[in-house]
Amino acid sequence: MVDFLDDDCDDDSRPLLCGNNLTHINTNTNVHNYRERKHISTKMNQQGTDFSGTLNYLGQMSYRAVNDFKSYMNPRDYYSTVSEEFSESRESSFTMVEENPRMMEAVNGSDFLSSKYESLDYDVMENELYYERERTHGSLQHLYVSLVRWLLMLSIGCTVGLFAVGLDLAMTHMAEGKYELIKNTITRCLDYGCTCWAFLMWITIDCSLILFAATLAVYAGPAACGSGVPEIKCYLNGVKIPEVVRLKTLIVKSIGVICVVVGGLAGGREGPMIHIGSIIAAGISQGRANSVRFDILKCFPKIAKVFENFRNDKEKRDFVSAGAAAGVSAAFGAPIGGVLFSLEEGASFWNQALTWRIFFASMSSAFVVTVILSAVNDHLGAITYQGLVNFGQFPYENCHIDTWDIFTVIILGIMGGLLGALFNSLSFRLTLFRRKYLNRIRACRIIEAVVVSLISTTISFSAVYFFSDCHSLRTYEESKYAEHHPVQLFCADGEYNALATLIFTTPEESIKKLFHNPKLAYSCLHLVFFFVVYFMLTCWVFGLCVPAGLFVPALLTGATMGRSFGEGLHALFPNSEWVVPGKYAVIGSAAFLGGVSHMTLSLTVILIETTGNTSYGLLIMVTVMIAKWIGSLFQEGIYEASIKLKSIPLLSWEHPETATNLQAKDVMASPVCTFQPVEQVGKIIAVLSHTNHNGFPVVEGQGNNNTHDDHFTYGQYRGFINRSQLIILLKHKVFFKDLRAPYRPPYLPLYYFKTEYPRFPSIDSIHTTVEEDSHFIDLHPYMNRGTYTVTINASYPRIFCLFRALGLRHIVIVNENNEVVGIVTRKDLGRFRETKRCGKPKLEHLDIR
Amino acid sequence: MVDFLDDDCDDDSRPLLCGNNLTHINTNTNVHNYRERKHISTKMNQQGTDFSGTLNYLGQMSYRAVNDFKSYMNPRDYYSTVSEEFSESRESSFTMVEENPRMMEAVNGSDFLSSKYESLDYDVMENELYYERERTHGSLQHLYVSLVRWLLMLSIGCTVGLFAVGLDLAMTHMAEGKYELIKNTITRCLDYGCTCWAFLMWITIDCSLILFAATLAVYAGPAACGSGVPEIKCYLNGVKIPEVVRLKTLIVKSIGVICVVVGGLAGGREGPMIHIGSIIAAGISQGRANSVRFDILKCFPKIAKVFENFRNDKEKRDFVSAGAAAGVSAAFGAPIGGVLFSLEEGASFWNQALTWRIFFASMSSAFVVTVILSAVNDHLGAITYQGLVNFGQFPYENCHIDTWDIFTVIILGIMGGLLGALFNSLSFRLTLFRRKYLNRIRACRIIEAVVVSLISTTISFSAVYFFSDCHSLRTYEESKYAEHHPVQLFCADGEYNALATLIFTTPEESIKKLFHNPKLAYSCLHLVFFFVVYFMLTCWVFGLCVPAGLFVPALLTGATMGRSFGEGLHALFPNSEWVVPGKYAVIGSAAFLGGVSHMTLSLTVILIETTGNTSYGLLIMVTVMIAKWIGSLFQEGIYEASIKLKSIPLLSWEHPETATNLQAKDVMASPVCTFQPVEQVGKIIAVLSHTNHNGFPVVEGQGNNNTHDDHFTYGQYRGFINRSQLIILLKHKVFFKDLRAPYRPPYLPLYYFKTEYPRFPSIDSIHTTVEEDSHFIDLHPYMNRGTYTVTINASYPRIFCLFRALGLRHIVIVNENNEVVGIVTRKDLGRFRETKRCGKPKLEHLDIR
Repeated sequence: MVDFLDDDCDDDSRPLLCGNNLTHINTNTNVHNYRERKHISTKMNQQGTDFSGTLNYLGQMSYRAVNDFKSYMNPRDYYSTVSEEFSESRESSFTMVEENPRMMEAVNGSDFLSSKYESLDYDVMENELYYERERTHGSLQHLYVSLVRWLLMLSIGCTVGLFAVGLDLAMTHMAEGKYELIKNTITRCLDYGCTCWAFLMWITIDCSLILFAATLAVYAGPAACGSGVPEIKCYLNGVKIPEVVRLKTLIVKSIGVICVVVGGLAGGREGPMIHIGSIIAAGISQGRANSVRFDILKCFPKIAKVFENFRNDKEKRDFVSAGAAAGVSAAFGAPIGGVLFSLEEGASFWNQALTWRIFFASMSSAFVVTVILSAVNDHLGAITYQGLVNFGQFPYENCHIDTWDIFTVIILGIMGGLLGALFNSLSFRLTLFRRKYLNRIRACRIIEAVVVSLISTTISFSAVYFFSDCHSLRTYEESKYAEHHPVQLFCADGEYNALATLIFTTPEESIKKLFHNPKLAYSCLHLVFFFVVYFMLTCWVFGLCVPAGLFVPALLTGATMGRSFGEGLHALFPNSEWVVPGKYAVIGSAAFLGGVSHMTLSLTVILIETTGNTSYGLLIMVTVMIAKWIGSLFQEGIYEASIKLKSIPLLSWEHPETATNLQAKDVMASPVCTFQPVEQVGKIIAVLSHTNHNGFPVVEGQGNNNTHDDHFTYGQYRGFINRSQLIILLKHKVFFKDLRAPYRPPYLPLYYFKTEYPRFPSIDSIHTTVEEDSHFIDLHPYMNRGTYTVTINASYPRIFCLFRALGLRHIVIVNENNEVVGIVTRKDLGRFRETKRCGKPKLEHLDIR
Repeated sequence: MVDFLDDDCDDDSRPLLCGNNLTHINTNTNVHNYRERKHISTKMNQQGTDFSGTLNYLGQMSYRAVNDFKSYMNPRDYYSTVSEEFSESRESSFTMVEENPRMMEAVNGSDFLSSKYESLDYDVMENELYYERERTHGSLQHLYVSLVRWLLMLSIGCTVGLFAVGLDLAMTHMAEGKYELIKNTITRCLDYGCTCWAFLMWITIDCSLILFAATLAVYAGPAACGSGVPEIKCYLNGVKIPEVVRLKTLIVKSIGVICVVVGGLAGGREGPMIHIGSIIAAGISQGRANSVRFDILKCFPKIAKVFENFRNDKEKRDFVSAGAAAGVSAAFGAPIGGVLFSLEEGASFWNQALTWRIFFASMSSAFVVTVILSAVNDHLGAITYQGLVNFGQFPYENCHIDTWDIFTVIILGIMGGLLGALFNSLSFRLTLFRRKYLNRIRACRIIEAVVVSLISTTISFSAVYFFSDCHSLRTYEESKYAEHHPVQLFCADGEYNALATLIFTTPEESIKKLFHNPKLAYSCLHLVFFFVVYFMLTCWVFGLCVPAGLFVPALLTGATMGRSFGEGLHALFPNSEWVVPGKYAVIGSAAFLGGVSHMTLSLTVILIETTGNTSYGLLIMVTVMIAKWIGSLFQEGIYEASIKLKSIPLLSWEHPETATNLQAKDVMASPVCTFQPVEQVGKIIAVLSHTNHNGFPVVEGQGNNNTHDDHFTYGQYRGFINRSQLIILLKHKVFFKDLRAPYRPPYLPLYYFKTEYPRFPSIDSIHTTVEEDSHFIDLHPYMNRGTYTVTINASYPRIFCLFRALGLRHIVIVNENNEVVGIVTRKDLGRFRETKRCGKPKLEHLDIR
C-alpha cells in the first residue's frame, strides 16, 4: 500500500529544463543553490547545447528536444537523453541527501526544509468545469450539499465519541485489572516474602505491552508514533504528512495507545484521541477507505454523488479540523476547548459558518460520550458524567482566592515557563541523539521503548517499596473526591501509602487526587521526587515510537509541581485559610503544560471545562500567559520544535519581523515550467516526467530577457493548471490532432477529477503512442483563470499574509506586463526563518532538500 | 466639531469625468445606473464636448478642461464649468435622495446601500517610505513597539474595567435608592391612601431620567443611541460609522445608560459597555482625544513617537476589537466569552498573536472588575466577586439533568427561535414605522422615549397594584440566592409579592431570581403576563434613541419564558426530581437571546461563564443551536437586520451562494479615475475636488478600447495611491517644476501622513497658486506598488474571500496585459445580496445611494 504521491513536491529543486535562460540573474540569497545552478549551466554550455531556440507550439522546450519530437518517438526517452547530463548532476546531489538523511539531520538539527512533504491546496480550482457545475447547481442542490455537510459533521462527532468511549472503557478496565492484580500480589507476598516475584510480574506485563505497541507502531504504522498533535497541526496548516489520516494509522494508534496507557508508560491518550478524531473525520467525509478498497462513489454511484463535492483539499481540511475538535471534546469533555484548540493550533482561517460546524461536531462528540458514560456509570437516561477526563469539580465554597494568590500564580507561572523550557530543550536534544544513534535500525526504536518501560516500572516499584509515605486514613476520608480505595501496602493499619496511591492508578486519577486531596495528604519531599521522576519519564516518552500523548503526563507533572509548592506554602503559613494545595496543583498543571506546549486560550478553556469551574479561570489564564512568555524566551513550544526537527515547511502565524524588507523577487523561484493554452501531448508528458512540480502557469507568447528589470520572463500569464489535472487529461486522452481543424474533444466531466482524489496516478502509469505525442490538449476549459497573482514588487509579508489567510499552495509572480517571472510556493516562504542569537533576531534562509 | 470626512466615500456614483470613453460597454446589471449614465453621455454628446482627445501628462482629463489648464487658471473652477452639465444631472438625482431619504427608506426598507459610510483599510500601505522605515527599524525598535502594544492592551483592559465598575456602582446605588424610596412610599401610602402620589412620584423620576437621556442622545451624540453592538460590528467588519469611537459618544453613552437603567426602561448596560470599551480602546491606542484637543504625538513628540505605529486603520481596528472584548469581559465577567464575541461578531481574521492580545486585554478588564468589586463587597484582598453581571452559581449537587431534558431543550430552542423571529420582525416593522413618521423631527424621538418610559412605569405599577402574586416567605427563604429582601407590598404578613419582587429591582437581579428561586416561587400565569409585557417593552426600547442594550432584557424575557415553561412542567410532573424550573429559566434565556441575536459560540460561553457552571453548558449549546436555526428560517439576527436597515455595506461571513457565477467584470465599477506616476498638480486637485473616491490606481500609458474583450482600459497598472496621501502631498507642496530638470523634492517623511490620521484635511482646504497647478508631483515613493490585483476573470467568491480575509478596501481589476479595467470596492461587493422568496434564494443587486 504505497499510496503517497512521491511525485508531488513543489520543491526548490526545479529541474533546469524549464526556462530557456539558465544564466538568468538569480536573486536568491541562497548561495548554495545558486552555485549549483551556475555550475550546471556552465557544464551545459560547454557541451554546446543550444537552449535559446524554441518552437512556438512547444513553448519553453529545448531546441534539441523539439527536434527529437518531430521524429515522432517517445518524448520521455528523448527528453531523458537531452537532460541526462544535467539531471545526472542534480540527482547525484539528491542521492547524497537521500542516503544519509539522518547524518545531515543529526548534524544540523533543523536548518533545512524537507521536500518530501507536499502541500494542501485550500484554494478552489475555478475553471470552466467548475463554473458549469455552479450554473447547473440550483439552490436546492446547494441546500442538499449543505445538509449532507451537517449530517457528516454529526456522524463525525458521534463516531469520535463512540470510539473514545470504547477506548476509554477498554483502557480503564484493563488498567484497573492490572493494578488490582499487582496490589494484591504485593500484599499477599508481604506475608510470603515473594516481593521480587510480584516485581517480575509487573515488569513482564508492562514490558510485553510496550513491546507489542512499539513493534506495531514501528513496523505497521510509523505515522501513528507520538501524540499525533504535531502531525494534525501540520495537516491543518496545509502540509500533507504521509499516511497521517489513514485507516491503518487509526488502528495502530488505537491499539497502541491502549497498550501504552495500560503498560504504565508516562503517555496520555488525549493527543492520540485528537489524531484519531482527525482520521475518522477524513474517512467519513471522503466516504472511502483505501485499505479495505471501499469507495462510496464507486459502490453507490447514484446515492453518493454528493460526496464529489467533498473530494478536495479545502473540504477535507475543514472536516479534519472538526474531527480534531471532536477528539479534544471527547477526550476532555471540553467542546468549547475543542473548537478553540482546532482554531489555535490548526486553522489559518476564521470563518463563522465553519466554526459553527466544528462546534456542532465537537458538541455531538461530547454529548455521545456523556450519555454513554452516564449510562455505564450511573443509569441509562442520566446525564451526570463529564467527559472522559474528569479532574473533579471544585465546589465554590472551597474556592478561596486571595490577593496573595496573584503572587503565587506569578511564581508558579515562572516556574512552569522555566521548567517547560527545560523540558523542551531536553526533549530536543534527546530527539537529536535518537536520530543520530537509534533511528538507523528499527529494532533500536523498539528496544528503546521497552527499556523506558523497564525503567519506569522499576522506579515505580522501588518508590513504592523503599519510601513509606504513610498518612492517616482519617484526613484522607474527609476529602470528597477520595472515593477510590487508598493503597495500604507497607503502611500500618489505619494508614495509607500516599505515593503508592499516586502510582497505582492512571495518570488522570492521580491528577484528580492531587487536585482534591486535603492538605497534608502528601509529604513535600515525596512529591518533589515524584515530580523529578515523572518529568524525566514524560520527556523520554514524548519522542518514543509509541502512540502516546503529552497532555496528561505534563498536567500530572505540573500538578505535582504545584502541589508540592502548595504543601510547602502550607508549611510556611499553616493557619492561612487561602492556602489550598489543591488550588496550586491546578495552577501548577496549567503553568507546566503552558510552558511546554505554548498553548494559551485553548489550554485555559480546556482546564476550565475539565474542572467545571470558572473561579480558578482567571488564575489559570494569568499563569498560562506568564508560563508561555517565560518559556518562549528560551525555546519555542514543543509541537513547533518537533515540527521544525522534522523539517516540515510549516507556515507560522506571523511572518518573521525581519523579513519585511524582502520582496517577491527575493523569495520566488525561477526558472518556471510553463505550458501554452493549447499544448502538445509530448511536451506535457516530458515535463511531467522530468519535474516534480505540482502546478504550472499557462502562458501565451514566448519568454524573453529584454525587460528592464533583468528578470527573465516566461510569457504572459493566462491561468494555472495542476499536475493532477494534466495526468487525468492524459489518462483519458482528451487529445485532438490538428490545430487548424475545428474538431475539439468534448470537455472531460468534473467527476473524473474527483474520483481519483487524493491519489492521482503517477505519470509513469500514463502510456501514449508515438502518434499521440504529437497531438494537442486544449487546456482552456481546465485551467484556473482567476488565480491570485502578485507583482514582483510585492513584499514578503504581503505574500505571506495571502498564503496564510487563503491557504494557498503556490502563487505566480508576474511583472508589470503580466508576464510570469517566478513562482512562490509554501516552501519558498517557509524557508525564511527568524532565529535569535544573543537576543538579536537574524533571518535564516533554509535549504530545501 | 464636524469631524467626519464627507469626501471619503468610494461609492458607485463615480463622476463621469474619469475615463475618456463614456459609452463603454457597461456590464453592470444595475439598469438604473446604466440608464442614468447613458442619459448623461447622450446629453454630453449633444453638447458637442470632445472627450476622446487627451494630453499625455493629463491622463484621463477631458480635452476642454486641459485647454483650460493651459491658460493657467484655477483648475477647480474650470473643471467645474466643464463638468457642470453632467454633474448637475448627477447632483440633482442625489438631492432627491438626500431630501427624502426617509421616504425612500420607508418604502423600500433596506434595498440599497448608503454611500455615506466609508471603509477602513486593513491593508498596509507598502510604499518606499514604509520600506525605508522598516529598513531603519532594528529588532530593538520592533521589540519596543511590541512591548508598547502589550502595555496599551493592559491599559485598555484596566481602564475598561475601572469604567465598568464606576458605572455599575453608580447604577446599582441609584437604582436601589429609587426602588427603596418607591417601595417605602407605597407601603406608607397603603395606610394613608395616597397610592396615586407614589405612582406619580415613580413616573416623575423615571420620565425625567429618560427625558434627560433621550435629549442628551438626540442632540449631543446620536451615535450613542441604541446598544452600540451593531455599530461596533460594522467597525470591526471594516465600515466606519460616523462618530462611533468619539469621546463625546463615550460621555453621552455613559450618562445615558445610567439614566436608562435607573429609569427602569427595559434596556441593558451590557451592549453599551461593549461600545464604551471600544471607544476607550480607540482613544488610548491613538493617544488622542480631538474633543479636548489632546494629541500625544504633538504634546510629547519625543516620548510618544511610538504611537506613529498605531495610527492606521489596521492597528486601530485591532485595538478596538480588544476594547470590545474587554467590554464584554467587564460586563459579564466573561473573558473568554469576550474574546469569542469579538471574533464571532467582529473580526474577519483569526490571528493567534492578535487573539492572544485580545485575551490579555479581556482578562485584565475582568481582573480589575473582580478585584475592585470584591474589595467593595467583601474586603480588600479577597477575590470573590464574579464580574458585574452575576447570575448566581449553580451548585453541582442541584444540577439534575435527565435524558428527558433533551426534549425540553429542543422545545425551548424552538420556542426561542420562533419568538426571536417574531421579536426581530416586530422590531423591523417598528423601525420602519419610526423612520416614516417619527424621525423627521428630533423632538419626536425624545417624546417617544418618554412615552415608552411612561407606559413601562404604568404597567409596572398596575402589575404590582392589581395582581397579588403572594407566596409564602418560607419557601423563598429556603433558596440560597434569595438574600435580597422580598417585597411584601399588598400581601399578607409572612408572604411576599413575587411579581413585585421581579419588578422592584434591576433586570440582572430579576434574572438571578428566576434562575435560582425554588419551585413554585412564581405562578405560571403571572410569569406569562410578565413575559408578554417585557417582550413588547424590550422590542420597543431596542430602537429608541437612548443608550440601551438588548442582552439583559432579552435574557430576562427568555428566562421568564423558560421559567413559566418549567413551572408548567412541574405542574404536569409534580414528583419528578429533574424538573427544576431554574434550569429551564437558564435554557430559556439562552434560547431567546440566541433566537434574537443569532449569536452562537460566544453566547454559550458567556452564559457558561456568568452562571459559573459547565454542567448546563451542553444543554445551552443545543438550545442556542436550535434557536438560531429556527430563527434564521424566518429572519436574520437583529444586529444584521438593524445594520441592513441602516443600509450599511457590511460584508457578511460568506458570499451569497447564488453569486458563484459572477465574475470580476460583472462586479467592478468603471470608468476608473487614474493618475500617471508623475502627475500634474492641477489634474490632481481637479480630480480630488470633483470625485469622492478614496484611492486611485497609478497607471502608465493611455487607455484605449481596442482590446479583444470589449473592456475599456486605463493604462498599465503600476501602483495605488490614496486620497489622503495626495492631500498631504498637496498640503506640503512636494512639487517640482520641470519634468526634464534633475531636481526632485526630498521625500515627505512618514510622520506627516501619520499625525493627520484619521481626519485628513479636505481638498477645499488646499490652496495652490496658478503657477503651482502646472507643477508636478512624483508619486513613485508614495504609491503602494505591491497591492493585490485580480484579473477580470476572477470569480465573485474569490474577490469576496480576498476582501474578507485581508480586510481590503478596494481592489484593482486588470486585464491580461495588466491594464486597469475597473475597480471593486466593499460596496460593489456588498450590493449583491441573497434574499429568499418563497424559499428560493434570489440574488438582489442593490443600488448605492
